[in-house]
This record gives sequence, C-alpha cells and structure tokens, in this order.
Amino acid sequence: MKKGILERRISTDKLPEALSKYAVGCYECHSQNHETHRDNFEHMGFRINVVVSPNDCKTCHPVEASQFSETKKANAVKNLMGNPVYQVLVDTVTGLKKTADGRMTSERPSGNTLHETCLGCHGTNVESKGLKKVNTKMGELMFPDLTNWPNQGVGRENPDGSRGSCSACHPRHSFSIEIARKPHTCAQCHLEPDTPAWDVYTESKHGDILFSKEHEWEFNAVPWTVGKDFKTPSCAVCHNSLIVSYDGKVIAERTHDFGARLWVRLFGLIYSHPQPKSGNTTTIRNKDGLPLPTAFTGEQASEYLIGRAEQEKRMNTMKSVCNSCHNIDWIDGHFTKLEGTIKETDEMALAATKLVLDAWVSGIEDKTNPFDETIEKMWVKQWLFYCNSIRYSSAMTGAPDYSSFKNGWWYLSENLSHMKDWIELKKKLGGIHLK
Amino acid sequence: MKKGILERRISTDKLPEALSKYAVGCYECHSQNHETHRDNFEHMGFRINVVVSPNDCKTCHPVEASQFSETKKANAVKNLMGNPVYQVLVDTVTGLKKTADGRMTSERPSGNTLHETCLGCHGTNVESKGLKKVNTKMGELMFPDLTNWPNQGVGRENPDGSRGSCSACHPRHSFSIEIARKPHTCAQCHLEPDTPAWDVYTESKHGDILFSKEHEWEFNAVPWTVGKDFKTPSCAVCHNSLIVSYDGKVIAERTHDFGARLWVRLFGLIYSHPQPKSGNTTTIRNKDGLPLPTAFTGEQASEYLIGRAEQEKRMNTMKSVCNSCHNIDWIDGHFTKLEGTIKETDEMALAATKLVLDAWVSGIEDKTNPFDETIEKMWVKQWLFYCNSIRYSSAMTGAPDYSSFKNGWWYLSENLSHMKDWIELKKKLGGIHLK
Amino acid sequence: MKKGILERRISTDKLPEALSKYAVGCYECHSQNHETHRDNFEHMGFRINVVVSPNDCKTCHPVEASQFSETKKANAVKNLMGNPVYQVLVDTVTGLKKTADGRMTSERPSGNTLHETCLGCHGTNVESKGLKKVNTKMGELMFPDLTNWPNQGVGRENPDGSRGSCSACHPRHSFSIEIARKPHTCAQCHLEPDTPAWDVYTESKHGDILFSKEHEWEFNAVPWTVGKDFKTPSCAVCHNSLIVSYDGKVIAERTHDFGARLWVRLFGLIYSHPQPKSGNTTTIRNKDGLPLPTAFTGEQASEYLIGRAEQEKRMNTMKSVCNSCHNIDWIDGHFTKLEGTIKETDEMALAATKLVLDAWVSGIEDKTNPFDETIEKMWVKQWLFYCNSIRYSSAMTGAPDYSSFKNGWWYLSENLSHMKDWIELKKKLGGIHLK
Repeated sequence: MKKGILERRISTDKLPEALSKYAVGCYECHSQNHETHRDNFEHMGFRINVVVSPNDCKTCHPVEASQFSETKKANAVKNLMGNPVYQVLVDTVTGLKKTADGRMTSERPSGNTLHETCLGCHGTNVESKGLKKVNTKMGELMFPDLTNWPNQGVGRENPDGSRGSCSACHPRHSFSIEIARKPHTCAQCHLEPDTPAWDVYTESKHGDILFSKEHEWEFNAVPWTVGKDFKTPSCAVCHNSLIVSYDGKVIAERTHDFGARLWVRLFGLIYSHPQPKSGNTTTIRNKDGLPLPTAFTGEQASEYLIGRAEQEKRMNTMKSVCNSCHNIDWIDGHFTKLEGTIKETDEMALAATKLVLDAWVSGIEDKTNPFDETIEKMWVKQWLFYCNSIRYSSAMTGAPDYSSFKNGWWYLSENLSHMKDWIELKKKLGGIHLK
Repeated sequence: MKKGILERRISTDKLPEALSKYAVGCYECHSQNHETHRDNFEHMGFRINVVVSPNDCKTCHPVEASQFSETKKANAVKNLMGNPVYQVLVDTVTGLKKTADGRMTSERPSGNTLHETCLGCHGTNVESKGLKKVNTKMGELMFPDLTNWPNQGVGRENPDGSRGSCSACHPRHSFSIEIARKPHTCAQCHLEPDTPAWDVYTESKHGDILFSKEHEWEFNAVPWTVGKDFKTPSCAVCHNSLIVSYDGKVIAERTHDFGARLWVRLFGLIYSHPQPKSGNTTTIRNKDGLPLPTAFTGEQASEYLIGRAEQEKRMNTMKSVCNSCHNIDWIDGHFTKLEGTIKETDEMALAATKLVLDAWVSGIEDKTNPFDETIEKMWVKQWLFYCNSIRYSSAMTGAPDYSSFKNGWWYLSENLSHMKDWIELKKKLGGIHLK
Repeated sequence: MKKGILERRISTDKLPEALSKYAVGCYECHSQNHETHRDNFEHMGFRINVVVSPNDCKTCHPVEASQFSETKKANAVKNLMGNPVYQVLVDTVTGLKKTADGRMTSERPSGNTLHETCLGCHGTNVESKGLKKVNTKMGELMFPDLTNWPNQGVGRENPDGSRGSCSACHPRHSFSIEIARKPHTCAQCHLEPDTPAWDVYTESKHGDILFSKEHEWEFNAVPWTVGKDFKTPSCAVCHNSLIVSYDGKVIAERTHDFGARLWVRLFGLIYSHPQPKSGNTTTIRNKDGLPLPTAFTGEQASEYLIGRAEQEKRMNTMKSVCNSCHNIDWIDGHFTKLEGTIKETDEMALAATKLVLDAWVSGIEDKTNPFDETIEKMWVKQWLFYCNSIRYSSAMTGAPDYSSFKNGWWYLSENLSHMKDWIELKKKLGGIHLK
C-alpha cells in the first residue's frame, strides 16, 4: 500500500484491519469468508477452507476478481457442459465405448474421465459432501469430502458458490507473477491441436527471442517496462499485463478480462466470429436456434457478438502493445494478413461442412449425433484442429511451418480429399454405419 | 569419503588404494577390470577399454550398479529382442519393404536400422571383432573393431559381458548430476507416442513451474532438499533421487532401481498391469502361453507380477514424495483418478481388441502376423499410443489437453470408429490382403 | 577493427570513413545504398530505406554477405516458386478449395496464404508500389507501400533487387549473436514434419546437454571455444560458426554458406542426393527432363550435383567439428550409420513410388497433378515427412524415438500398408476421383 499505484500488486483501496499488519501466511487466505464455504472445517483449532476461491482472493485483489468474474474463462465449465451441442461432442469423445457382435455402444463419460480431460482445463464442480476420516502422518483426521478434487481448472465451480481458480495461472503457494508471465503457464491448456497458442509461439520469432534471451530479462517488475524488463512479448504481455514505456507511460492497463484486447474469436465454432458480448455463451442462439455463435453455413449470431465499434476499440488496445516495438505500417500489414487468413480458413471450413451435409442428406452418415462417424470426425478436425491452428499461427507473428505442414494447409487440403473419397466410397457400398 | 553419508556421491565403503588419492581422469575409468574387457587394447603405452561399463562404475558406485543390474532397464535389449511377440512387432515396423507387381514383401530389419530405432534407446550388442586400423590426426592407430558402436542405450550389452550404459542418463564426460536430474535427460527416450512422459510433463503444472523457475533452483545439491533446492519435481525427484526435507529427514532414498516407486505398469502390453517381479520379462507367460503380462482378453499373468502388498509398499514410497508438498487427501484424490483412468483405458483397449479378433475370425485380416495389416495397426495404436498416453497424462499431475485431444480420448474414439468402418468395408469387398 | 582477426565481428578490411567513428544506430543501416532502394522515402528530413537488405549489411560484413548470396537459402523463393513441379505442390496444398454438387475445385493460392505458409520461411517478394498515407501517433505520414510486408523469410526478394533477409536468423534490432547461435532460431523454420531438425535435436543427447547446461555457457564469445564456451553443439556449431580449440587453433571457419559442411542433402526430392552444385536449383534437370535432383525411380541428376571429391572435402570439415569431442572411430561409426539409413529410406521411398506408379497406370488416380489425390498424398508423406524425419534423426547424434515411432519407421511401414489397401479398394470400386 505504500507503493505508487502502478507498482502495487494489490488492487484494493483499503485492506481489512486484520490483514493490514501481517505478511500473508496460510490462515490469511484459507480462512476468508468461511460462512459461505461449504468446505470449511475445524483443523487443529482453526476454521479452515480447503479451497481458496476468487472470492477470497478478492479481499486484496478486487479489481482482478471482478474483471475475471465476467469472462469466458470464469464460465468455462458452464459454457462447455451447459451447451447441449458441445455436450454431445464431449460425450462422443470421452464416453466409454464397448464393442460386441459387430456393434459399438457408447456410455456417458465418467466423472473421472471428464475430470482428466475437458474439465482438467475448464474446471470441475467441487462440492462438499460432508466430512470423512483421512489417515495422515499426524493420525486420523476429519476433512471435507470434496467432489472432483483436486482440480485447478480456470472455471472451477467452488464450494463457496464462486467460479474460477486463480491457481490455474498463479500456482499455489508462490503465486509468482514470474510464472504467470512466462508462456509455460498458458501452455497448460492452450495447446495443439485445437488451440495451439503455445505450439505456435515456440515457432515464432517472438518465441525464438524470448527463449534465447529470457535469462537476462526481469519477469517480476511491476509495472513491466517494455524494452527494459523484456524485449519480446510472452503471452501475458499482449493479453494481460500492465505494460509501460521507458518513461513510465502506460501502454496497456493490466486486465484479468482475457478478451479485453481481443476483437475476433479465432477459435471457430464452427467459423471464426467477433468475440461474444457475454462471458456466458450458453445463451447464444444462431439463426437455426442452435447455441452456436455461427450457423453451419456461416452466418453469425450477431446480436450476441460484439459490434464493429467495440471490435475497433479492442483492436486498437492490442495495436498499442505492438506499437511499442513495431511501426503502424508493419502492424497494419500483420493484421491485414490475419484478416485474409480468417476469411480463407472460414471458407475451408465451409467446404468441409458442405461435404458433411452431403453425407447426411444422402444418408451415408446419420446427423442425429453429428460427431460420431468417420466423415463427421474429419469435418470436426477441419474446423477444430486445422482451421484454428492456421488462425493462431497467423495471429502470433507467424509460424509458417505450422500453417503449412504441422497442422495447417497440408491437412486442410488432405482432409477434404479424404472426406470426398470416403463419401464416394460409402455411397458405392450403400453406407457403413457404426451401430 | 570425508562427507557425511547423505552428502556422498559415491556409495562404496572402501575405495581401492589406487584410486583413493587421485582425482578421476581418463585412465581411472577406462582401465578398470581390463581382464574381462574384450575391447581392451594398447593405446600410447596404456591398456585401455573403449567402453566403460556399469561393472566399471561399480568400483566407486556399487549400490547404484547393483540396484540397476536387476531392473527392466538393464534388461532392455533382451526384454525386447528376446521376446518372440515383440520381435515380430519390431520386424514388422523396421523391416525394409519392397513392392513389385502389386505385392509387398518385408525383410528382416538391418542391424543399422535397429541401432537407430529400437536399440538406440534399448541398447545395442557391442562386441569386439578384433583390432582394425584407423587414420587419426596422430597417424594410423589400431583400435578395437566394435559392433553396433557408438551407442549409449540404457540396456547395452557390453564387451565385458555386463549390461547397461550409465551414460544413457549421465552423459560422458561430465557425468553431471544436474543433467541427470533435469527432464531433458529422460526426454531422450520417454517420448510420445508410446511413452510420452516428457510430452505430458511439459504440459503439466509441475512442468510449468519447473521451466519457469529452474534458474533459481539448485540441481547439484546432495542430498536434495525439497522446498529449498527445488519446488516442483523433475522426473528424478519422483522416481530416483535421494530427497530430504528442510530439517534433513529422508523423504525418499536414492534408487537406481527405476521401478522401486512404481506399483503399476502404465505401459500396456496389451493392458496395464502390476509391475513385473523380475527385470527380465522374457520368462513371463500369460494364460495362453504367450510371453505377455496380460492376455488378449485382459487376464493378468499374476504369478509373474508383484502382489498387492508390494504394490502398496511402492505406492506409499511414491506418496511420501508427493506428501512433501501435498496433503494426503489431495494425493488420494489424485491417485484415485489414476486408478479410474487405468480401468477405462483398459476397457478401451479391450473394445479395439474385440474388433481385431472379429477381423481375424472373419478372415479379412490374417493373424499370423498380428501387426502388419491396416486394422491390426489401428489396434496397436489404440493400446500402444492412445491408452498409454492417457495413463501417463493422468499419472503426472494431469495434462488435460494431452488426454483429451493430443493423443488421447479423441483418437481413442476416432480409432474405434475407423476400425469399425474398415472392418465393414473389407467384409463387403471380400477382404483386402497385403500380399 | 582494433580486435584481432578471429575476434572481429565485422569482416571488412576498411570501413567507410562515415561509419568508422560512430556506434551503429538507426540511420547507419537504414540509409545505405539508397539509390538502389525503391523503398527509400523521406522521413523527418532524412532519406530512409524501410527494408535493410543483405546488400546493406555487406558494408561491414562483406564476407558473410558474399557467402550467403550464393546459397540455396538466398535462392529460397526462386527455388520454390520458379520450379514448376514444386509450384504444383504449393498450389495443391495452399490453394483455396470449394465444394459443390459433389465436386471439389481448387483455386490458385492467394498471396496472403502463400505469405503465411511457404513464403513465411522462404521469403516474399517485397516491392514498392509508391507511397501511401499512414495514420501514426505523430499524425498522418507518407510511407512506401510495400507488397507482402512484413516478412523476414531467408530468401526474401528485396526492393533494392537483392535477395535474403539477415533478420531471419539475426532478429532486429539486437542482431544478437547469442540468438543466432541458439537452436530456437533455427526452430523458426527447420521443423517437423518435413525438416524436423529442431524436433530431433531436442530429443538427442546433444540437445539434452545443451538444454540442461546452457545457463553456464557463453554464447557471445568470438571466436567460440569448444569445451570452454560450450560443451555440446547447437545448430550453429556444426553448420556455421567459427570454432576454435582451447589453445586458439581454428577447428572450423565461420561460414554463411550453409551447405559448406554438408555433403549430402537429406531432404529428399524425391530421394536423398549429393548437395546441388549451385544455390539456384531451378536449372537442375533429371533424366526425364523434370527440374528435380533425382528421377522418380531414383537416378540422380549427377551433372548438377557435387562430386565425390567435394563431398569428401565437406564431410571432412564436418568431421573436424565432431573430432573436437569424439574420436575418429566414434565419428566413423556414426556416419556409417547415417549412410545405411540414407540407403534404406531411399528404398522405402521407392517402394511407395512404385505403388503410386501402379495407381497411375491402372487409372485409379490421375497423374496430371501428382499431389492432389488420396494415394498421391500418402506417397508425398512417405518421402517428404517420414523418410526425411528418419534421416534428420540419424544425422544429429540420433533421436531413436523419432526414428521409431514419432515420424519414423512406424509411419513409413503403416503408410505402405495403407497405400496398398487404398489401391486395392479403388481398383475394386472402379476408381474414386476427386473431380
């Protein structure tokens, strides 16, 4: 609190009396708001919460908690599991399969497997089912019996009713700003083949420079001075951090609203689209009434997506970051390329969609579940793996090998040829069904 | 020898007189036990062994050499090449193929290719065929003519009759403990798609913290103090190293028996199973008489595998390591997830096995060689690539992207659909054979 | 200039008077040779070039510029886009596809997509189309309107008529020798699946040691002393850098001719072959008149490739580098393995080529475009992805997992089986065509 505004690592104006005189130990965090914590229990004479939630971190970091609470990240579980279309995809991928007598059946996925796959990143539902005995080095002790625990998924549903896990990016118990600013942290989730931010970054010129020179940089400085503390961006620089220039002028404000500098959602569902207005995406309806931001044929559910003015504003925030090192002409050239790539990859997704529609119309695959047959799975790979990869690669200074071969145009083209062959094949043989 | 027991880097009680007064140079290692070394030769007036073997390292490190000698790693060549089932797999994958007149033929793999593939990690057979002339900067010299050399595979068969190569993990000539403790060392062999320990680690929270903070840690301290010298585990912490607490209490003893803290073998053959009793796995017989730890239909060859009590003991050793940072409830939650994942992935391997059995029974593929046709290869990928990947990912703090998409449930499910389609396809077309 | 020859970082004997007294700032580089720069413009009272080209760097680094100018790298755009065979491959992979009424059509690739894929590494054609207005923080300014900008591809065609971009490896504006010497720099382009130098290096013992110990090494020293400044090679050590021994003796001269230490081209087109004589490979003609260094059936276009004597010379330069740490016997053993691997992978490419020839002869696929149908694409993967990967892995100390499973023999064998099945399948069904 004695530091200047920009140097502060806490965002509250007034610390609670009880906290203002102490260094932060265990109890300061694990005892907050115990009345709302269904995971509160008595431990060695103290009332302790097992799970520290964003609502607890809010005591000292109210701005960050508030920004975070409205994001897609904070809604990561609900957005996935509360959307009937995505739910079918999740079930199809992670459900246990059995085969017998030439037939294959699929069960609903177990909580265990969901926890280790989708919900590992999105976050689990952690509830307290009461107390249970645990044998510890200090004898038998009573602990809350928590569901789907341990988990630090970014949208975790906590036993105090809050959403999110700050330790997704600020691992316990150092909560190091250095770790959160290094790309390895984002690389826990933003990975190939669907969201290859890490994979693309490591191939980019920015990544090259960071990995070659990070030993000379300062990842703990607040504020973070471009050109002095670091010389190329890590993920946090472009997306989150408070960045200042040599002379202390603010280039970009710190934000824990992870869409604040994003105008377009590269992650196709099915196609790329402007960022959603709300972090809760379950209410979106496309023209066909489906909870998707675009229709199968590409039309955007515009009333749920940010408009041109908001897009411009966010793009300009991002360009300010670029402008610390690059001139406007360079930046415009870069983002013009991205725009072209979004357009072309959307067309390549459409080409695949037309093929799967043909497969459905001709009856060789069954659209009841649009994700469980051979041609359908190829179609999913087109937009979820290859189109996304190329867009990520385009956005982040460029990773030409990724766009060309790794998960890019080679597979985008090959996949269309394969879909075409499988369609003709199944048509000639009168359809091949899974069940 | 003047250091306390825990601080020592050698494990012998009495050094040979000849070694006790010298720093270790070239000759100290390259001259040991020359009577058993068929690669011994006269070089500049000295009798030198080309290959330094675990039996030579044993002079100063008897405990490590002895622990190592009984492991699966020390038997890595024999376990692979002396097992007729694995031999067929090796031959099918690495044998040179020729095509002519619509037929494909396969030769036995060359020594050269075996050396650069399987035996690169498992180790080659290094024998001396006598002496040969070599042109060096110092003129023509005589050197032993060694087969399959150079190689540092972990189970290398040495010209002194011993097995193993310490330089697999302790690269010559620094033999640095720092290198052996860093995950890049294990990443020479434990890699995707079959054993993706490195790939999973880099995506895990442990990996994130290590790669972000290792510059502040101490990788040379003996013993190695958790929380002080390092704050998250590298591979060596969980599997091998002598770990002590802040107050110097031993948390885990150093071991060069790499299974000492492992109760279950995640690596499916075909299914996951308790660790084998002996490091020599060629003697195992399943219920059908095959040298495999599980039957095609899943039954374990229990008499060759460790029992429940030994499993508990090893699991508790591992849990002690976890318990340095995590509480028992957390740890139990983690390993309960792993148990569930083992069960489900084994079921997914079984689903694929039932399909390949159908292909064999119906005659569309030929089980004489179970690894060389299209549907058979899909079956191998199911248990060797995808099931293994998901188990590794589950075991190591979690790498949810890996389990979901990278080499996980997406492919596990897609692969079953593809197998099903190919079976129906081949049935309708009356079988497609390779030969 | 005051430093000894070996310590110098510039290679000119006489600096222009105007430069000899100053530290290098912006203007020193951005004002060179303005008369040839069509991207020259007036900026704040100065005549500035936007693009600094190798011809500008030549002012202080004439030896490097001259060596570079004759390489395949300097010709990277022309070699790709000026070769009609490669042009078809580029078009097939990156051209926008459309599907309608059961037909698929492909357009010529857009400049945008070429820029983000192939030409991202190879380099774009940067031309000035005159001036344009740009809104900057300092108001509206006039800048040259450049095509395909920004780009730092290694063979970039510059607006001063020169070829190349030094910032491909020496990123602006630090031009750090440390960055150029670290493997992350090469990892911008030399990546799986076609040229997996980085991927293989990270799995190799050299890579293990570098990543574990680089924090203790000196990447800025000139000359670069083996055993003191570094203890295992990065890419630059073997391929480019001036390396000296402890006693200051030159082991290898610095070279910016990237083929100077290469005798064989591992990168198959279609087969491995001796390095081309000229950096401009568009003039090569194989026995069938095609601009390829080998024929479909393997014969080399020998008159365009270096001969045995030149191969020996280059191999000996490379062996001198190895010989800093390894003895001749070890080195010979290593390269004998590589030779065997080249031979076998070429045979595996031939096996696939015979299958695709069968597909063309029998009419089930159409050789007009040899890269656009299912079996043809499998054939391309055989030589471009899998054979190359195995050769790279063999050449660089060995990466056995890569050669076995990752992109190696497993896929080489599986792919042949798949090709065989698809051929029989299409024959039985009377051909499946894309159009």
